[in-house]
Amino acid sequence: MSIKWFSLTVDAVDPPKLARWWAEVLDYQVVFEEDSYSAIAKDEWTFPGIAFNRVTEAKTAKNRLHWDLNPTDQNAEVERLLAMGAVKADIGQGQVPWVVLADPEGNEFCVLVPWKHPEEVS
Amino acid sequence: MSIKWFSLTVDAVDPPKLARWWAEVLDYQVVFEEDSYSAIAKDEWTFPGIAFNRVTEAKTAKNRLHWDLNPTDQNAEVERLLAMGAVKADIGQGQVPWVVLADPEGNEFCVLVPWKHPEEVS
Repeated sequence: MSIKWFSLTVDAVDPPKLARWWAEVLDYQVVFEEDSYSAIAKDEWTFPGIAFNRVTEAKTAKNRLHWDLNPTDQNAEVERLLAMGAVKADIGQGQVPWVVLADPEGNEFCVLVPWKHPEEVS
Repeated sequence: MSIKWFSLTVDAVDPPKLARWWAEVLDYQVVFEEDSYSAIAKDEWTFPGIAFNRVTEAKTAKNRLHWDLNPTDQNAEVERLLAMGAVKADIGQGQVPWVVLADPEGNEFCVLVPWKHPEEVS
């Protein structure tokens, strides 16, 4: 008996559009798409994927769950994401080494300082 | 240049406690732990992990992001999770084949009907 993390599922006003946006961010594939539900993943055998589920209500508060993303180049990725339609987000983070952005539906995420496993670095 | 999904980060009132709860759910390891920030993952080389970050404010609304979990046995897993302190959650889902639960800090997640890749089934 076991249970596995299948997907992170995101309430979305426009699931196909937000799914394609995140697929471009992460270089993921769209593995399932219909009007009310879209899913993306690294490939169809890799879990968790990210699913987008249609809701009618817009976001009203800071999300309690968010993505942290590990870039190879923080500045370059922030520039790329802003050009794609992300926006800078102020959730009271103050001066921190990561950059807080929000996706086109307002979901916060952080672009970290590039991180490598200590055994990769040494 | 690339960016990778490093972790799903969860605002938590008690990060070490909630991290250990989720590690037990998913059979993950605690890969980092301090009072204000804990992280779990399948192992320290597998991403995304799940991180828990201390906040003082409690949850006030349904989360817009949630976990979907794929069990080998839905009923047995729901029983196990309820015994661990999960609670059934009503987010207006009505009659659906998945079971909506909430973790000890109220974060919703779904226990799906067991899913196998079509190529595994055939």
